[in-house]
Amino acid sequence: MTERNIKLVLEYDGTDFCGWQIQPQVRTVQGVLEAALTGLLQHFVRVTVAGRTDTGVHAMGQVANFVTTSHLPISTLLRGGNALLPRDVRIVDCEQVATKFHSRFSAKARSYQYRICQYPRAVGRQYAWHVYHHVSIESMQEACFFLLGENDFTSFCQATSQLDHHRCFVHSANWRKDEKDLIFEITANRFVHNMIRILVGTFIEIGRGKWSPQEMQSILQGMDRRLAGPTAPAKGLTFMQVTY
Amino acid sequence: MTERNIKLVLEYDGTDFCGWQIQPQVRTVQGVLEAALTGLLQHFVRVTVAGRTDTGVHAMGQVANFVTTSHLPISTLLRGGNALLPRDVRIVDCEQVATKFHSRFSAKARSYQYRICQYPRAVGRQYAWHVYHHVSIESMQEACFFLLGENDFTSFCQATSQLDHHRCFVHSANWRKDEKDLIFEITANRFVHNMIRILVGTFIEIGRGKWSPQEMQSILQGMDRRLAGPTAPAKGLTFMQVTY
Repeated sequence: MTERNIKLVLEYDGTDFCGWQIQPQVRTVQGVLEAALTGLLQHFVRVTVAGRTDTGVHAMGQVANFVTTSHLPISTLLRGGNALLPRDVRIVDCEQVATKFHSRFSAKARSYQYRICQYPRAVGRQYAWHVYHHVSIESMQEACFFLLGENDFTSFCQATSQLDHHRCFVHSANWRKDEKDLIFEITANRFVHNMIRILVGTFIEIGRGKWSPQEMQSILQGMDRRLAGPTAPAKGLTFMQVTY
Repeated sequence: MTERNIKLVLEYDGTDFCGWQIQPQVRTVQGVLEAALTGLLQHFVRVTVAGRTDTGVHAMGQVANFVTTSHLPISTLLRGGNALLPRDVRIVDCEQVATKFHSRFSAKARSYQYRICQYPRAVGRQYAWHVYHHVSIESMQEACFFLLGENDFTSFCQATSQLDHHRCFVHSANWRKDEKDLIFEITANRFVHNMIRILVGTFIEIGRGKWSPQEMQSILQGMDRRLAGPTAPAKGLTFMQVTY
């Protein structure tokens, strides 16, 4: 039996999921995806993913892969998979790839965005954090500079994390305007636990003028979670793409 | 007792509402808004609105007004109103206006947008219609021209409508791209029942190449609902703003 390695590009709305990773008793993206693919392919399917997102975090260009002995054509995997999946997960693209491709270990960089809005919102409230205070995008952009390159992100890592190190290489980090919203975009080789949400919580303190942009550097160097700002809510965060 | 005329700018997510207009047994925007304001102001509040939206239609710059004898400051109306409203309706702005201001009758023009997406979507699926066929934005833009100025929109009006006439003056009508989506924007003095959704259904037939852009003119002139395309789903439609 020949095995095929199938790569999926996924989009999901994290609102009603307890994150990516499969767990008993709760609804997870991996859980509903493996159930749909197992039903479609008639054998147990285990899926690996580029970025395991937390509860409430969304994804637009998430990449996953799985191995199958099935001969179902790619177009059937895409359409049949979407027919079996709930509406808040969609397979956007599907292709057969080389056996050595691994969605997580082959990834060179991952990109996320975080959306904040500055007025009380109903349409799209699931995808943005409403920040009451007016914030200066110029100050927040100035603070981005200190994140670039390789740094230890201990100050921006959830205190209970068990990772063996907290060094990340940040390729780019920028704030931009999108109509009435402010969007933070960041690309790095890896992210430590809650890193982007703690960064955003810290950016907001800078944007409000409570801290200067240079404070970002002192917080990084202090290597202590208590120096940084609060953790921003999950709903503003979206996993955007993977670079291989 | 002096009466104050209060103008509200509202945003709402139409997904879980049976439209604007209050009705027994069902959840409507007017229903939840009047309940919240009545609770806050301690007297019965009746609200009028610029554009009564249908079931499933969203709004971002909807305008409503009501009369009150209460002396509560404007900032309390805004914050207290939002505290009592469900999350899918937000008061975005609130001000006291002249007694003669009427959100519906004073309105000179109303603007809507309709969003279509061209791939299976999870994030924001509540706000866009997924059109499977590839459509040409150029053909659809060409067809916009025939809508401008005053025309009889009988062909684009739900057949059961009881309006006394179907003439509308269209100030502007355009298709534009927004990242991966296509957005139709239209401003007119008034709209007949389901007009924008039937227009979009017709545009899609043109965009797919089934009809030429010039067909839009023949359909208008035919004054028969059966000539136009199908009615596009409500969820892609958003009431955007009112011009006074």
